[in-house]
Amino acid sequence: MSVEEKLSEMGIELPTPPKPVASYVPIVQTGNLVYLSGQLPIKDGRVMAVGSVPNPCSIENAKEGAKLTAINIIAHLKAHLGSLDRVKQVIRLNGFVQSENGFHKQPEVLNGASEFIAEVFGDKGKHTRIAIGVFELPLNAAMQIDAIVEVE
Amino acid sequence: MSVEEKLSEMGIELPTPPKPVASYVPIVQTGNLVYLSGQLPIKDGRVMAVGSVPNPCSIENAKEGAKLTAINIIAHLKAHLGSLDRVKQVIRLNGFVQSENGFHKQPEVLNGASEFIAEVFGDKGKHTRIAIGVFELPLNAAMQIDAIVEVE
Amino acid sequence: MSVEEKLSEMGIELPTPPKPVASYVPIVQTGNLVYLSGQLPIKDGRVMAVGSVPNPCSIENAKEGAKLTAINIIAHLKAHLGSLDRVKQVIRLNGFVQSENGFHKQPEVLNGASEFIAEVFGDKGKHTRIAIGVFELPLNAAMQIDAIVEVE
Repeated sequence: MSVEEKLSEMGIELPTPPKPVASYVPIVQTGNLVYLSGQLPIKDGRVMAVGSVPNPCSIENAKEGAKLTAINIIAHLKAHLGSLDRVKQVIRLNGFVQSENGFHKQPEVLNGASEFIAEVFGDKGKHTRIAIGVFELPLNAAMQIDAIVEVE
Repeated sequence: MSVEEKLSEMGIELPTPPKPVASYVPIVQTGNLVYLSGQLPIKDGRVMAVGSVPNPCSIENAKEGAKLTAINIIAHLKAHLGSLDRVKQVIRLNGFVQSENGFHKQPEVLNGASEFIAEVFGDKGKHTRIAIGVFELPLNAAMQIDAIVEVE
Repeated sequence: MSVEEKLSEMGIELPTPPKPVASYVPIVQTGNLVYLSGQLPIKDGRVMAVGSVPNPCSIENAKEGAKLTAINIIAHLKAHLGSLDRVKQVIRLNGFVQSENGFHKQPEVLNGASEFIAEVFGDKGKHTRIAIGVFELPLNAAMQIDAIVEVE
């Protein structure tokens, strides 16, 4: 089964990838490594997970936001690669979660992205990760996630 | 026109690159990828954009600081490469902006670096980026930016 | 002298590397680059440097925590590579320090890791670095450090 078929089976429709919100590009490839710019939990132009976790953005809402951010990452990969079967290995996710004072469950939030990527890509989706709790993020998004992906 | 001539035309004089403030080196190359350590908005040994954005460091001051940080990145590249024409592609800028509570315009601040890099290097300067709002930075600088650059 | 002999001479015993705290893997290799997930100052399953620096976690305690984090990075490398002599160059440490309001000495804290890595690996341990002061970290750890390493 191709990755696109897997996504379809999971009921996931890839959106038109969101445009960068400033003076940069969404993807650059060097050799067989693809670098993606930081993605936000945006759907139809609207940020779907807003503010600090767990208040006002609940952990559940934030996990959904992380999954949506991963969908945006995959949408950019699809636009760049043509076929998602060209993904050889997801190398890295860098995850930054807007965090309330005293919140330390950034890994749980980011699992919303990591588990989705692992489900979509199988062994090729097993990645390294950093999970950081930050003070503020662009557009008041609850998280920003970027990726490095090996392609063929 | 060489990149050095372009800088000259823009009235930019590259400084002696700032020394690392601790136990590490400014640049390491692996294959044709050059990794730069995080740079600060330092000029003549002095931090020129200080504190959180937008207070006490205004957005305008912070954009200037981001441009100055980009100049320091280029100065390190020049010292390492000899000729800046050896830059094949700027792959990535990682931007961290010291942010006041409720400030979400990190992308606007970092455009001070991104637009400058794009102007200096043209298509070779089109990079991916992350923009993170952080709580504190070394030397109370308003931003820290690091880079990954493909060279030939 | 092998890196393992050097560690032994320094009185350092590598632990069984800590398991990831969520849905990702500790190491992925692409070509001759090894990416490590963010590591915490964990020993025998317990976080040894807790909270913001310098309160409640003193700078001295935090430097020890950064060194312990570097030991965990090396333990993962050993598990992945078999022999640490396969390390060709430590390319990058990304260091995030949980910081109290007004704390700007992240570089001093992270030197606990950088100086240790340089001592263990010699010239091959001379790395680039970023040093960021963040609001919160997983498990309330005082720091998280990840690495990119060139191997042969």
